[in-house]
Amino acid sequence: MDIKTIIVKKRERKELTEEEIRLFVHKYYKGEVTEAQAGAILSYIYKDGMTENEILSLAIAMADIGEKIDFEELKKEVVDVQSTGGIGDKATLILMPVIASLGIPIAKVASKGRGIIRGTIDKLESVPGYHTEISMDLFQNHIKEYGVGVLNRLENINPVENKLYKLRNEIACTDCIPMIAASLMSVKRATGNKKIVFEISYGNGNYIKTKEQARRLAKILKTLGKKLNQQIGCVITNMNEPLGHTIGHNLEMIETIQALKGKMSQDLGETIVALGSAILTLATGNKNRKVQEDQIKEVLRNGKAYEKFLQMIAVGGGDTTYIENPDLFEKAQWVMPVYSSENGYVERIDADLVGSIAVYLGAGRMNRETEIDRSAGIVLNKKIGDVVNSGEIVAYIHTNDESKVTGATQNLQEAFQITKRKIVPNARIMETI
Amino acid sequence: MDIKTIIVKKRERKELTEEEIRLFVHKYYKGEVTEAQAGAILSYIYKDGMTENEILSLAIAMADIGEKIDFEELKKEVVDVQSTGGIGDKATLILMPVIASLGIPIAKVASKGRGIIRGTIDKLESVPGYHTEISMDLFQNHIKEYGVGVLNRLENINPVENKLYKLRNEIACTDCIPMIAASLMSVKRATGNKKIVFEISYGNGNYIKTKEQARRLAKILKTLGKKLNQQIGCVITNMNEPLGHTIGHNLEMIETIQALKGKMSQDLGETIVALGSAILTLATGNKNRKVQEDQIKEVLRNGKAYEKFLQMIAVGGGDTTYIENPDLFEKAQWVMPVYSSENGYVERIDADLVGSIAVYLGAGRMNRETEIDRSAGIVLNKKIGDVVNSGEIVAYIHTNDESKVTGATQNLQEAFQITKRKIVPNARIMETI
Repeated sequence: MDIKTIIVKKRERKELTEEEIRLFVHKYYKGEVTEAQAGAILSYIYKDGMTENEILSLAIAMADIGEKIDFEELKKEVVDVQSTGGIGDKATLILMPVIASLGIPIAKVASKGRGIIRGTIDKLESVPGYHTEISMDLFQNHIKEYGVGVLNRLENINPVENKLYKLRNEIACTDCIPMIAASLMSVKRATGNKKIVFEISYGNGNYIKTKEQARRLAKILKTLGKKLNQQIGCVITNMNEPLGHTIGHNLEMIETIQALKGKMSQDLGETIVALGSAILTLATGNKNRKVQEDQIKEVLRNGKAYEKFLQMIAVGGGDTTYIENPDLFEKAQWVMPVYSSENGYVERIDADLVGSIAVYLGAGRMNRETEIDRSAGIVLNKKIGDVVNSGEIVAYIHTNDESKVTGATQNLQEAFQITKRKIVPNARIMETI
Repeated sequence: MDIKTIIVKKRERKELTEEEIRLFVHKYYKGEVTEAQAGAILSYIYKDGMTENEILSLAIAMADIGEKIDFEELKKEVVDVQSTGGIGDKATLILMPVIASLGIPIAKVASKGRGIIRGTIDKLESVPGYHTEISMDLFQNHIKEYGVGVLNRLENINPVENKLYKLRNEIACTDCIPMIAASLMSVKRATGNKKIVFEISYGNGNYIKTKEQARRLAKILKTLGKKLNQQIGCVITNMNEPLGHTIGHNLEMIETIQALKGKMSQDLGETIVALGSAILTLATGNKNRKVQEDQIKEVLRNGKAYEKFLQMIAVGGGDTTYIENPDLFEKAQWVMPVYSSENGYVERIDADLVGSIAVYLGAGRMNRETEIDRSAGIVLNKKIGDVVNSGEIVAYIHTNDESKVTGATQNLQEAFQITKRKIVPNARIMETI
């Protein structure tokens, strides 16, 4: 059985066997399948999809390469929460201390440097000293002692998933639903997580564009979970605007700190409650949403979630004075207001465009060589449903490159869709599956 | 405009512009488009095809990179003949001296090492001393002085076509009709050929499997020819059996020498007359098939074609004593007869299978590391329509690896399809377009 036969078989829409998928994955990992050959297979997968059996085989084959994490010795069932990404998404940052402060151990293994604005670990590392490149023993010890652990998933855990993700990114296949499903489940398998809540965000600014795609992904994840002995909860959310008020590393850390003190935008609050409830359901079996919501709001009110966050940062080597005094986070040199030229109500804020502008301002990677500017980003002064008057500030641009102010301002104005009729914001949470 | 946008556009079945195709080709050549990205684009092309405009743009973009050959200074219109390949195909070898001896200059620029049994130049180089890595000046001088020139197309002529061919081979896309068309026409454009006859062979043992595909390719080539100011003739042939009696380098050279003395199998003879006539039509404008056939047969009869071949080999540095005495070609150590176990008529000889067996015996490349064994191959003792009795020899295996005799014998027996009813061979030539 050679790789060309597998390429042709997939091209002809025939189902690949477990053995063929395993061969592809192993040979690709060892470099015996070339980048072009893997690119061809992924392209045909993109065009024609995969069966559930193929996705399952792919998830298992990937997870079987490299080191695995095993929580058996902890003698505690840990939970995990994973978002498929989105602009301004800091929900995981907030949920970790919230869940841990409720006495439920939470383990977060994440990859650095993914996504245009990057993820949880990159944002956490905006706190000077904080680091996640720790040993697996220390990681488990953090969970045992403090109820929360964060580990940077280095190349030794599920390395082929990393390699395939880079390839997908190279050939514009990051939004391939079967590959997303296989990747998510293989990482969770390799990192030993057995109770996972996925936030599947769809719409502008996401890999997943439609509600139907989001539901399809949720269904696949649930099915795979059953076969892989994992309990899966899925919360489907829409993204008609960026989540919360901030986009950018330092800015999002500051918003996270405020949220942990109970102060957050409505969409972010809804998200925290929905995801938190889903996690509590998996952890406790209890499905009483009202009780769950009260529990979550209580730890945000009484400071326990905030205290847990302080502890989490301290344990990770971070300078907690930054948490206690967020003004210490480095500010961008240029903080420029963006004014509305219209009167009306905010109907929509183009998350995709806002994300691109943030990248342009330095908050994300234009390409692999670009350095991230942690102080750069965007603050949204208005959210969907807000009244806005001509001349009023709708957002702030944060950048260290003055030459980018004019272009970013113009684009940011265009990202705000203003209408004359009154807007009642849609619920961000569409459903929990 | 970046390459991911182009990948997505092609995936979404939108027509790529000339500028987008040019950008892809140039960036791929410079290594700014990765192998995986090019593999993805080719995969989508394989799935969804290309428009005529896309094929034209691709042909021109490829030809524009690297050196070009220009026959203007010759002040003679040269012709060219090109087969899309096939098992046992030595027609070009025979046609070059035939056409040149009729006073029509013929220029052959070919790539070494393509195809499992390799091509014209590789076979010519079986004559000790013969070489085609000559300067362009010398190549043109050969055409001027002797009416025939053979040049190994090194990396400097249409290098990106070579690079893309290797990629196509890597990802199982060699049989992609639009890519074949673009490749053929771009090479002809780069090598300055303006009057070209293509033999498009279809069926078993070819990239092109059906008559419809062959016709489609012919139609595309003719259309592109008009737009590129090239005169194109296409001869469509079927391949129900390998062409002629031999498969393998030295064996095919010996058959070529016999053919140039007028002795050849019926299918090979028909092919030479059909292709030769098409070339004469392009060169002279005269379409009288009877006259053309007589001219071709005459130079094969009176020794002029053979004399021209001797001259061509001598000019290329080859040892002509091998031509005068073909017994000098090295023989394989093991020449083993293959017997029929049935009585009847030969209905079909599986060209694909015969090709694979020849490769197995050492006549072709199993992979890039394999050395070619010039003496290895197969001689067919029976052709379609021949009577065969049980115990009669249908073929000979030539190999230097005794361990391969048993397996090759068994497979070769299977390649012969024997029937009880009388078989009248189909014409090999289906049509001239």
